[in-house]
Amino acid sequence: MKIGVLTGGGDCPGLNAVIRAVVKGATLRYGWEILGIEGGFSGLRVPPHVRVLTPQSVRGILPMGGTILGTTSGNHMITKNRSAEGEDHNPSDEVVEQVKLLGLSGLIAIGGDGTLRVGQYLFERGVPVIGVPKTIDNDIYETDSTFGFHTAVNTATEALDKLHTTAESHRRVIVVEVMGRYAGWIALEAGLAGGADVILIPEIPFQMDVVCKKIMDRYQKGAGFSIVVVAEGAIPVGGEMSVLKRSEDGYVLRLGGMGHKVGQEIADRTQVDVRVTVLGHVQRGGSPVPFDRNLATRFGTAACDLVAAGEFGKMVCLKGGRIESVSLKEATRGLKLIPPDSEEVRSAETLGISFGR
Amino acid sequence: MKIGVLTGGGDCPGLNAVIRAVVKGATLRYGWEILGIEGGFSGLRVPPHVRVLTPQSVRGILPMGGTILGTTSGNHMITKNRSAEGEDHNPSDEVVEQVKLLGLSGLIAIGGDGTLRVGQYLFERGVPVIGVPKTIDNDIYETDSTFGFHTAVNTATEALDKLHTTAESHRRVIVVEVMGRYAGWIALEAGLAGGADVILIPEIPFQMDVVCKKIMDRYQKGAGFSIVVVAEGAIPVGGEMSVLKRSEDGYVLRLGGMGHKVGQEIADRTQVDVRVTVLGHVQRGGSPVPFDRNLATRFGTAACDLVAAGEFGKMVCLKGGRIESVSLKEATRGLKLIPPDSEEVRSAETLGISFGR
Amino acid sequence: MKIGVLTGGGDCPGLNAVIRAVVKGATLRYGWEILGIEGGFSGLRVPPHVRVLTPQSVRGILPMGGTILGTTSGNHMITKNRSAEGEDHNPSDEVVEQVKLLGLSGLIAIGGDGTLRVGQYLFERGVPVIGVPKTIDNDIYETDSTFGFHTAVNTATEALDKLHTTAESHRRVIVVEVMGRYAGWIALEAGLAGGADVILIPEIPFQMDVVCKKIMDRYQKGAGFSIVVVAEGAIPVGGEMSVLKRSEDGYVLRLGGMGHKVGQEIADRTQVDVRVTVLGHVQRGGSPVPFDRNLATRFGTAACDLVAAGEFGKMVCLKGGRIESVSLKEATRGLKLIPPDSEEVRSAETLGISFGR
Amino acid sequence: MKIGVLTGGGDCPGLNAVIRAVVKGATLRYGWEILGIEGGFSGLRVPPHVRVLTPQSVRGILPMGGTILGTTSGNHMITKNRSAEGEDHNPSDEVVEQVKLLGLSGLIAIGGDGTLRVGQYLFERGVPVIGVPKTIDNDIYETDSTFGFHTAVNTATEALDKLHTTAESHRRVIVVEVMGRYAGWIALEAGLAGGADVILIPEIPFQMDVVCKKIMDRYQKGAGFSIVVVAEGAIPVGGEMSVLKRSEDGYVLRLGGMGHKVGQEIADRTQVDVRVTVLGHVQRGGSPVPFDRNLATRFGTAACDLVAAGEFGKMVCLKGGRIESVSLKEATRGLKLIPPDSEEVRSAETLGISFGR
Repeated sequence: MKIGVLTGGGDCPGLNAVIRAVVKGATLRYGWEILGIEGGFSGLRVPPHVRVLTPQSVRGILPMGGTILGTTSGNHMITKNRSAEGEDHNPSDEVVEQVKLLGLSGLIAIGGDGTLRVGQYLFERGVPVIGVPKTIDNDIYETDSTFGFHTAVNTATEALDKLHTTAESHRRVIVVEVMGRYAGWIALEAGLAGGADVILIPEIPFQMDVVCKKIMDRYQKGAGFSIVVVAEGAIPVGGEMSVLKRSEDGYVLRLGGMGHKVGQEIADRTQVDVRVTVLGHVQRGGSPVPFDRNLATRFGTAACDLVAAGEFGKMVCLKGGRIESVSLKEATRGLKLIPPDSEEVRSAETLGISFGR
Repeated sequence: MKIGVLTGGGDCPGLNAVIRAVVKGATLRYGWEILGIEGGFSGLRVPPHVRVLTPQSVRGILPMGGTILGTTSGNHMITKNRSAEGEDHNPSDEVVEQVKLLGLSGLIAIGGDGTLRVGQYLFERGVPVIGVPKTIDNDIYETDSTFGFHTAVNTATEALDKLHTTAESHRRVIVVEVMGRYAGWIALEAGLAGGADVILIPEIPFQMDVVCKKIMDRYQKGAGFSIVVVAEGAIPVGGEMSVLKRSEDGYVLRLGGMGHKVGQEIADRTQVDVRVTVLGHVQRGGSPVPFDRNLATRFGTAACDLVAAGEFGKMVCLKGGRIESVSLKEATRGLKLIPPDSEEVRSAETLGISFGR
Repeated sequence: MKIGVLTGGGDCPGLNAVIRAVVKGATLRYGWEILGIEGGFSGLRVPPHVRVLTPQSVRGILPMGGTILGTTSGNHMITKNRSAEGEDHNPSDEVVEQVKLLGLSGLIAIGGDGTLRVGQYLFERGVPVIGVPKTIDNDIYETDSTFGFHTAVNTATEALDKLHTTAESHRRVIVVEVMGRYAGWIALEAGLAGGADVILIPEIPFQMDVVCKKIMDRYQKGAGFSIVVVAEGAIPVGGEMSVLKRSEDGYVLRLGGMGHKVGQEIADRTQVDVRVTVLGHVQRGGSPVPFDRNLATRFGTAACDLVAAGEFGKMVCLKGGRIESVSLKEATRGLKLIPPDSEEVRSAETLGISFGR
Repeated sequence: MKIGVLTGGGDCPGLNAVIRAVVKGATLRYGWEILGIEGGFSGLRVPPHVRVLTPQSVRGILPMGGTILGTTSGNHMITKNRSAEGEDHNPSDEVVEQVKLLGLSGLIAIGGDGTLRVGQYLFERGVPVIGVPKTIDNDIYETDSTFGFHTAVNTATEALDKLHTTAESHRRVIVVEVMGRYAGWIALEAGLAGGADVILIPEIPFQMDVVCKKIMDRYQKGAGFSIVVVAEGAIPVGGEMSVLKRSEDGYVLRLGGMGHKVGQEIADRTQVDVRVTVLGHVQRGGSPVPFDRNLATRFGTAACDLVAAGEFGKMVCLKGGRIESVSLKEATRGLKLIPPDSEEVRSAETLGISFGR
């Protein structure tokens, strides 16, 4: 029996740990052959880009960031109609065909919301897909947590720890933009852990005057500096500031994130000294923290078990500390957002942290 | 209204984060006065060692290891009978008396199994105790996780990452003893994350010949090195090796941990080059990782809420991602151990990791 | 006898270690009283902002980033003429006066080129100044190294390590802007350590087409990704791109650094996927690495020895592993730049790293 | 033209960086073929263990600890007489022969004092050896610094930072044994950076009563805890405690290091609570810090330049920030020890640190 494994979407700490667990689990427990598919689903187009993976070929990759299989952000193209490529066929047909030609009895797709949707689309067309959820944003439905998230929070918190001393020494406002287009999990967790004074997240539209009042209050009480953590997708109430628009492929648009806009507004309104730091892609890199390595490993072996049980169209997930599974359809019906009145948000507000509301 | 807060038992990353959250929560949300009690419950004996804590006095302590209140490992003495002290009274009587004299309407006790048992004992004698669970060992019942544990796992995993390269370069067996007298959580999580080949935990008695066979198999297959993670309380099947005895106060006994015994046995039986590292107290120290900071913070504000609600004799806990509470009696009825056939242990065995069984 | 100590200019890891060493050295070895001056030289204006420092007050600050005395970037104002302040006097007169009123027999000024120049200016007006060089940029003349620099290089290298995996997984060009307005030491050392393919520094004007050729060469050879490290003050040959202009106080100007311009040019010319990360102030923060802690400590005790010897108008420095001293006049006559044909630059070029020339 | 490269002795962070620089430098600058010799000099015995190295085969190894070529601690055997092996020939004859048979025009030997001595021995027998100094102990003559040392100091300092909080919280004495059999550089630098109260090094024989007096002084002044850093080879004055004896190959002897003896003595004499941590092999592992990566890289390209210039029998070295060369004979005439009255030691004593004298 032969199965395939691929990684799609933005890279994320822990991808290699999943690949290693899939290869070791499939080989040592089940005796299957494993094909590694390069560059996400596009590795299953014509001609395919695949290579055989053995326990030897995944040796030493457990602590490594990135993915040895490469990835692509263009997963969505797979389901696009012909106009997108100017060709006379749907690219997903190629994938369905290649899975047959390669003789894959199972296809483990590790990726975020986009990759999982493509997985469901292909599953409906007969491809034996098993999904493994991946996102540093932690916004995938139906799983308590995703690997990569804790590493990203760790990276962001370390940055906040460093910025704290410089903010304090210079009595400055430091605005830090972290990842999170639709969900503010990184901003919330890193902000709470890094001692932020203001945390702005997409789930709670903010008011600039509330933010500035918080900062001025601190100055008047003698604290003299403030740390403002902004999720890249944070949104002001009622269009007070222009909403950030982003293109997946766009370089130019990345120049202007919400962090800079918030920083500029604070500088204009309060006259205090402001510095802005956009953490950017460092949040995607680095060696995964132990939690992420282990969740990734458990997801990998569980995905093999699902293949063995023939339970395709499903995604492995974490529920209450245990690895379970859920249908890809269920898992991709929406994004997991922060409830604006969750215990954690209220705990933060108790400590005096402002969400700009 | 006035409340007290203390830290008992071995120190643990995140204690300061709880203290900070208790002080900020009690002051900013409830307007209470807070007394910090020094050196655990012994700070409530005659004469008491207490000091007033304000938001100003807990500034900057969120990322710091240790506890600004100090701690003591001698909590158990509180409940000892007179012979233990050679005096004519029970020390806990002093504590009950001091709580009244100081006018404490609530006493938040942050500590492990021992501290929480004393808390329950005092609660039964009328002291308005709220418990906050703390242990790097993660072995407290009725809470999914305790703060400090993830930091300890992180420290142990970083050590394993470092030892991996030296093991590989020299084709050695490296034995690493980690903390865990009764529960093997640190060994399991760090071993899995650090790519260990053998993990020995108290919950699964090990057979030395199975361990040595695993090591020799790896040599014969050309891997040439092995990483063996040993919880300090790991136990061989049927007394094959003498069981480790430890005294809470003993320095001398600490010289011989199970790590050294396992290392010596491997060296004797396999003739390979063995090195032993006992991680020791570095696992208790350091800045808490974000997960621990945030769990500690949420525990701290939740503990204040329990005081406000008058729900004494309870302990805050984490269940399925939410902060809840449970009676101290329930929480201290036993220790949370690793089920020998849990999904995580089986996942590890799938990857070829041996537990010596 | 009484001496003063202050920190001026941008903050830098190791400032607290110097302060601690000055206080401990002056107290324990010489028995002097120490005044900590707050906010740089401006703490010596009317009214002065000073506080007594004792070994107790510097306890625990060795590993901490920032400065417990606060700092200010406005040191240069001290030497400005009246028009700068719209007042009828030179602010430095206040400082000279306050030093006398406070009875300071020595004034240890820890700072960069700007602070040291003010120190020399005040020394010429009779103030018993001793300088301690500080700059993360490593560009101070007459000392082999400055504390803070190794920590900044460490932070930048850790970021490069993280970005490497994401660059490789996505086959992207990652442009990383690091600090260094006039000198490219951070870019050179972090670029070399982080495996950069291109390093652009102020000392070697770069040609955009050489940079792009290097990147395209790598793509054609299959490497598929490139890491480009850009010092903020890197300059293209002959005004190919507009030279970066910065204001010390300006927030708006900081939005557009050379990193973004280089990234944009590469994207325009090569059509490859480019991402830009501006590391920013994280480079100034964090706990100093051991080298910086120890250099700072040795500078601190040596500064006390200079005060004791009455050798004012001097700066402590590191020469060939030993702490020596040099006149402030000598030390501030220019900046220490990277020789474009140094052995280290040539070593980098041997490895295939392009400096864009 | 063809050259060889090998790594000998204990592993050390930065070995891979040298290998990478040698391979890239030799290939890209000189167009040579490179043979990687496995397991140190023993890879040049019969049969030889070698493999061709290309820029592709060293890709990604810059930040990795350990050595991709493997190493051996048995270098000394090479120069042993026949009785050591019970054979009728000197093993070094094999090496001389293999170098000829493999057609090596140069042999770059990366190693410590032992490896460099073998290099000199082989050079005298006609082998075109170039040495690259390596030791985490920093004790090689004729070079200001060796790579690996700063990484080891960093690891030890991070451990001290962690132990500080636990020592303070429990008011304990923590004894930390670090590497350094003959030279105390790691103990001195890590102890200074980690805020140690006592530092014991081989170069300054210590008196146990002076050590205990320092600890008791701190208790009486209210500090309540102490950090004692002990180099493994620290020696008491006049045999107060039995001198540590170690065997290169011995496992059993490693159980009893000077750290435990010092800890036991302090516990016996002062009755305070003592904990001992032996850092051990973690100090040899991990990703090299930037300084070590860059020194290793520069050593690697400089070694190629020496081969190209035909300057055999030499060792690359760092002098005053520049890479130079020195004869192997000079470099191996002794070990670089800490001068007991160096400015750095005196600076430490000024801060109140005791060396037990």
